[in-house]
Amino acid sequence: MQKIEGGVTTPIGFLAAHTAAGIKYEDRDDMAMLFSTEPCELAGTFTKNVVKAAPVLWDRQRVEEGRGVRAVVVNAGIANACTGKDGIRFCEETAEAAADCLNIDPLQVCVASTGVIGMPLPMDRIKNGVRSMAPTLSDSREAANLAARAIMTTDTHPKEAAVCLSIHGTEVRIGGMTKGSGMIHPNMGTMLSFITTDAAISKELLQEALSQVVSETYNMISVDGDTSTNDTCLLMANGLAKNEPISKEDDSFSIFVEGLLEVNRTLARMMAGDGEGATALIEAVVKGAPDKEGARKLAKSVITSSLTKAAIYGHDANWGRIMCALGYAGVEFDPERVDITIKSEAGELPLVENGVALSYSETEASEILSKSEVQILCDIHAGDQEAVAWGCDLTYEYVKINADYRS
Amino acid sequence: MQKIEGGVTTPIGFLAAHTAAGIKYEDRDDMAMLFSTEPCELAGTFTKNVVKAAPVLWDRQRVEEGRGVRAVVVNAGIANACTGKDGIRFCEETAEAAADCLNIDPLQVCVASTGVIGMPLPMDRIKNGVRSMAPTLSDSREAANLAARAIMTTDTHPKEAAVCLSIHGTEVRIGGMTKGSGMIHPNMGTMLSFITTDAAISKELLQEALSQVVSETYNMISVDGDTSTNDTCLLMANGLAKNEPISKEDDSFSIFVEGLLEVNRTLARMMAGDGEGATALIEAVVKGAPDKEGARKLAKSVITSSLTKAAIYGHDANWGRIMCALGYAGVEFDPERVDITIKSEAGELPLVENGVALSYSETEASEILSKSEVQILCDIHAGDQEAVAWGCDLTYEYVKINADYRS
Repeated sequence: MQKIEGGVTTPIGFLAAHTAAGIKYEDRDDMAMLFSTEPCELAGTFTKNVVKAAPVLWDRQRVEEGRGVRAVVVNAGIANACTGKDGIRFCEETAEAAADCLNIDPLQVCVASTGVIGMPLPMDRIKNGVRSMAPTLSDSREAANLAARAIMTTDTHPKEAAVCLSIHGTEVRIGGMTKGSGMIHPNMGTMLSFITTDAAISKELLQEALSQVVSETYNMISVDGDTSTNDTCLLMANGLAKNEPISKEDDSFSIFVEGLLEVNRTLARMMAGDGEGATALIEAVVKGAPDKEGARKLAKSVITSSLTKAAIYGHDANWGRIMCALGYAGVEFDPERVDITIKSEAGELPLVENGVALSYSETEASEILSKSEVQILCDIHAGDQEAVAWGCDLTYEYVKINADYRS
Repeated sequence: MQKIEGGVTTPIGFLAAHTAAGIKYEDRDDMAMLFSTEPCELAGTFTKNVVKAAPVLWDRQRVEEGRGVRAVVVNAGIANACTGKDGIRFCEETAEAAADCLNIDPLQVCVASTGVIGMPLPMDRIKNGVRSMAPTLSDSREAANLAARAIMTTDTHPKEAAVCLSIHGTEVRIGGMTKGSGMIHPNMGTMLSFITTDAAISKELLQEALSQVVSETYNMISVDGDTSTNDTCLLMANGLAKNEPISKEDDSFSIFVEGLLEVNRTLARMMAGDGEGATALIEAVVKGAPDKEGARKLAKSVITSSLTKAAIYGHDANWGRIMCALGYAGVEFDPERVDITIKSEAGELPLVENGVALSYSETEASEILSKSEVQILCDIHAGDQEAVAWGCDLTYEYVKINADYRS
């Protein structure tokens, strides 16, 4: 597997477009479109929030029907959530507008929205946006990048990743883009993430691969503990790489999953690191857990703790808060066997051994925690399972963004 | 039942003391002592965090043994958590020092600590503190207030409450004090809360009353979602009111529970309203839930949501975040039947009916949310159960306090 510079247009046959439709933001792009020259197998994971935005309901239907999806239309600014009976109509009309321009069936179109909850979508602007994007679809590197930029809300930079794999000697590509950066605490999905691949793979295995990977990536990040109404991850496979189709859980499938994991892990990390107001990406690695589920709960508890997040912002090695967060994760362990180490490009420093403080330099610890990527390594010595979770620090800026977001 | 001005010394036979022991803070009191002239029945609830501070382990033993507790020694500044094998020794030595001064058995002494995790307790200062407090024990109103002040950490004011009940014509009193105000997300306990009563009541019913009340009060508040290692709520009953002893779940027990609920609800609300950095108390009332447990989860989810908390700080009626928080609480309901209303001393304003926005004045909504106590009323129309939870807004000041806490 090779990591390459790229995004959603990296796999063969995928095109992207973007436009400034004036949905809510001024003077910036706020719509994007993806298009595949061939019908795709589609896999998806979605929010587990009881309150689901209309596009989540629409896309879930598309995944279930499997009619060979061709396009995705995305808007930023308004979430099309809590819009009552109108919500699904907005999705239908968007899909119809795209289908008209692209000469496909409306049921081959997925839609996604992100932004303020409860406002109606301005359908005239959405339709105008769709019509202006269709003729500009391009498979260029720039088109992918500008699409990734167009779907941002409070993100500070676009998030893309791509890999190239070899399956039985045939090159296969996977590319993706995602956006955060608040209301991020995905539960079987993520804010919005769109992954493309030219691999030939069955629908069942495509979904299996996505579900496996999502549990290790998007479901292991949190910005603020709030599981959104709109979390959506779509994976489209158009088969244009012409590899021998992946139809069982063999070596080819493993290679594909590994590539998919790399792309999504990269995107998930980017999303956590660009959490609202964040100055640092926090990576919690928990080792020695009795089972995988326990390891995940523990790692996620550390990166979700407001007090730990605020301490990292203050470059304060307040490991008591890490112990505390491990303790309320809902996993049994012996606190007197826990080791905690912090690590960044400035160095590595053990803070706790067997549950009690080592004598370490607070200055050195503070220096390590001042970097833009910080690792917290916890070994609970209760087994051989491990998990990694990603979050970010809690800053004044987070509060500012979210006290003012709608105004 | 009558609410009265008072605290832990309001019930007959309870004395309090305070001192500046110099444990961590300078120029302020940081230790308190409670003493009962008669042995007490003792009930307690404690943190469910796997990482339990040594005083939690010590006090739990005292509750189990039921040897007629007489005194409680509390210190602020250092939590005596993650202190390894030394932790319990610190508790023993503190209890022994108090027992010596008070001429009682060390096993009649409870201890409690709050503050930084991982630092050893300075036992010389603790013992000196105990010795200087013992001769100053007093049943005065002032003694109770200064004790409530001495146990504060980042609290901005002391928290006390008291009621007077009539049980079969006999006056019975309940008084209490508590402290917050960070790492507050109690799970079967609370940061530190000490309740006294002169009621005569069996140990079993005392524990039953406390457990009932804690689930409706401390377990329904959150400041930051972090369940502490030290959460402790102790309830001491010395019987000096000479009421006919409460020995079964009859009317007398109900009256006692009602009084206990009033004291603890008052203290819990105070703790939420004085959460670190808070400018407002948020009270979430959820009605129409299918069961009590569901109602509690929904109410607690609303007051725990970082995004909702930040919106309240910004006086922004961002009800989409409230819908979102209800949706991820883990309770099934129909989003299209939800009503949401906000309320404060500035008025009452319905925002959402049947899951969609009403046309309301943002200015009026903002005015309502600008008050120091704000209610969020949610009716999910799925049953007849309700619950109330209390939290606070999320502010720059919270981040500041917790980025700098140790330094």
